[in-house]
Amino acid sequence: MDSIARTDYRPDSFQQLTFHDATKGFSEGADTPRAYLERCLETIAAREPVVQAFVVVNEAGAREAADASAARWKAGKPLSPIDGMPIGIKDLIETRDMPTQMGCEAYRGNFPRRDSAMIRAMRDAGAIILGKTVTTELGQAHPGPTSNPFNPRHTPGGSSSGSAAAVGARMVPAAIGTQVGGSIIRPASYCGNVALKPTQGAINRGERQGLSQSTAGVHAGGIEDMWLVAKAIALRAGGDPGAPALFGPDTPPAAQRPARLIVMEGEGWAVMDEDSRRAFELLLEKLRAAGVELLTRADAAAIEAFERSIANAKDVSNDIGAFETRWSQQNLIEAHPDGVSQRFLARQKRGMAMTLDDYRGRLLEREAMRRALADIAPLADGLISPASPGPAPVWEGDKPGQPLAPRPTGDTVSNSATSALGVPCVTVPMTAVRGLPMGVQLIGHPHMDARAAGMARWVLETIEPVCV
Amino acid sequence: MDSIARTDYRPDSFQQLTFHDATKGFSEGADTPRAYLERCLETIAAREPVVQAFVVVNEAGAREAADASAARWKAGKPLSPIDGMPIGIKDLIETRDMPTQMGCEAYRGNFPRRDSAMIRAMRDAGAIILGKTVTTELGQAHPGPTSNPFNPRHTPGGSSSGSAAAVGARMVPAAIGTQVGGSIIRPASYCGNVALKPTQGAINRGERQGLSQSTAGVHAGGIEDMWLVAKAIALRAGGDPGAPALFGPDTPPAAQRPARLIVMEGEGWAVMDEDSRRAFELLLEKLRAAGVELLTRADAAAIEAFERSIANAKDVSNDIGAFETRWSQQNLIEAHPDGVSQRFLARQKRGMAMTLDDYRGRLLEREAMRRALADIAPLADGLISPASPGPAPVWEGDKPGQPLAPRPTGDTVSNSATSALGVPCVTVPMTAVRGLPMGVQLIGHPHMDARAAGMARWVLETIEPVCV
Repeated sequence: MDSIARTDYRPDSFQQLTFHDATKGFSEGADTPRAYLERCLETIAAREPVVQAFVVVNEAGAREAADASAARWKAGKPLSPIDGMPIGIKDLIETRDMPTQMGCEAYRGNFPRRDSAMIRAMRDAGAIILGKTVTTELGQAHPGPTSNPFNPRHTPGGSSSGSAAAVGARMVPAAIGTQVGGSIIRPASYCGNVALKPTQGAINRGERQGLSQSTAGVHAGGIEDMWLVAKAIALRAGGDPGAPALFGPDTPPAAQRPARLIVMEGEGWAVMDEDSRRAFELLLEKLRAAGVELLTRADAAAIEAFERSIANAKDVSNDIGAFETRWSQQNLIEAHPDGVSQRFLARQKRGMAMTLDDYRGRLLEREAMRRALADIAPLADGLISPASPGPAPVWEGDKPGQPLAPRPTGDTVSNSATSALGVPCVTVPMTAVRGLPMGVQLIGHPHMDARAAGMARWVLETIEPVCV
Repeated sequence: MDSIARTDYRPDSFQQLTFHDATKGFSEGADTPRAYLERCLETIAAREPVVQAFVVVNEAGAREAADASAARWKAGKPLSPIDGMPIGIKDLIETRDMPTQMGCEAYRGNFPRRDSAMIRAMRDAGAIILGKTVTTELGQAHPGPTSNPFNPRHTPGGSSSGSAAAVGARMVPAAIGTQVGGSIIRPASYCGNVALKPTQGAINRGERQGLSQSTAGVHAGGIEDMWLVAKAIALRAGGDPGAPALFGPDTPPAAQRPARLIVMEGEGWAVMDEDSRRAFELLLEKLRAAGVELLTRADAAAIEAFERSIANAKDVSNDIGAFETRWSQQNLIEAHPDGVSQRFLARQKRGMAMTLDDYRGRLLEREAMRRALADIAPLADGLISPASPGPAPVWEGDKPGQPLAPRPTGDTVSNSATSALGVPCVTVPMTAVRGLPMGVQLIGHPHMDARAAGMARWVLETIEPVCV
């Protein structure tokens, strides 16, 4: 294993790739979107053999788009602040110029030749749709080939495996992910990204409306690019049908020091290893020292009630998703009996065993969580929680003759609650555990995405990261 | 024009085609689903040349399904009460064995070879997916070839033109329609159907989740079949993601006399012709005589406030739909510039001119309507209103050299409010105006579909229809 493959991640010295600070050069002639793109392609050429973040890269299309962008910047007429930004797209999302194969054998060669809402919006904003990034099979458990950019023995997380790894490997400044259970925030945590899982519905999911808790979001090297991409989409494609779309400023939210934060334990707390918990607690101490008041379940009956309401969030989330997708998945299995994995079939079994009344019961549990969250809104500016129960676990593939590993891309346990709650989460790479990144998520109330981003920015800019 | 083509519709003597009362014969051997199907096919052969309700009929597949159903009934093991029922499917909805061409040149030959959620559910319940029925272009304004089964000079309504006409012509006992503005209830009114537009989200729309106010519903010859089809779908495919799906009994709701009804005027009131209004008012008199108390906007401040809240429902609905579909429609126009109609392009212009904030404003107006509706819930058991502003208008095609007729399939003005409100509506053919049917809609509060159906059944079974 060469030295590029394994690095000892240190959050204080690792340089993320950013775009927002490059555009001044585009205007002044010191840099161009084409040169920026070429630097990304060089990094991809160097890192991709081990990281394997991409399913396909559209080099020719990207170069053409970059040249068009360069002309706009030169003329002083960029289409948006992300004009010329190379972006990776999770391969669940339809793109007119690249196949959409969803990490699933049954979709091999699938090429609908149309742009999803968010893809259209980004193109209309001048962004460069550079390539499709690896997803786990249909965004579920079965992993793709991507490895963690900081140590290839470890998983990049999933299901947005390639998007998180591409940003972590500095191949692109931003990439699009999607989250039903923990598919943006967890891989972002494992790969040292900043990432936004927005309020449910805040970014138009286009053709992917089949789940009631699922969001499209942005992985990036920094808060600025993360926000600019999200906003560029929302302004042009809106949110999901019926949703008011992402609220907040057109420019990146300023850093905002929270006066008070609630420390959310959730289901993840109990399964954290000692190092990871210590890293998070050391970070909390630094926050306290910086004047942030921290509240826990011991401090208020409403927080305790909230924690109890989310104690079963993972099962609730999984059941809701399994029921909502069972009809389309059953179609898929019947049409392609050998085109899906054993992991996929196991999940489908769960959905097929449910009754409509089981599903209604799960919706009511989710609604109860949301009410409990509303009850703690007056107590603090938001919540803080580990973005994953630890750093990326080792994953070296299924072993022949052994039962399938239950969680090849890690555990959603730190994310199921915030997914079910429909709240905005921003993860920032503030801790490192045993040489790998682990994120911390700042969590807002519904539609308070800008506040969550502003608090995350303040943490990132003010607090020194923790290495354990 | 032959005598089949034009009939003088009389609601008291017109015999609807029903299915629920045929299944006893299937069990006892006096009839079979195959024989029932053959009778439908005979009617189609006789009426289709003029009515043109179907895009395609899958005779071979239907016969095979009918024989399988016959064997189940004979063995005493039907899959559901609708096992063996031949059903027409609006051609917006995907079916694995027939193309889905959406009345749109750009989708000519489109054949995704998969079943939408509701189609899967009906097949799993043993129903026979008989054919695809004509829709206006993409469910919008541009009409298809279907004519009104009671007079071919008149429109069948739209966008569920073929579904309404096929039921009105006794070709099938039930057909699936969809409604965004007035696309189930209006054509059902024009074609003498019973029909349910359920609570928003109560029947799973499958791949068609791109609009925040849009429902799939059932056209039928009677309340019993209408309900059994809706329930068969909801039990198997649920509702839209996140929705609790259709509530109510598994068997058709019993007739239920309302103690009090609110007469909803809405935008349609002002544009009704004299005969149509008189027919509706005569019906109200019969309801009063049967002991139903009727309240109007003059009777309570809350009703007046409600009426004011919905006074602009048509524009609100149209803008919401235009914004939500603009990205996918722009894709379509770019890919097939000659594949869409001038009417379609005009609507797209409306959507493209809107900003995100315009859309948010329309959502707030819709939300205000829904709050005003909730405020009148304690006053009555439900609402009653004409299902269309009159009987089907004449439509004989665009005239060369003339501007495009603005409403070739009639006016949604009596339906936009109930669509925007997301409430259940059941239309029953209780009036005839100048020899053509005109429906009356019983309207419930959200999730009270069974009550709306029960009240509609009571009206249908108890009150004598009105001919003007």
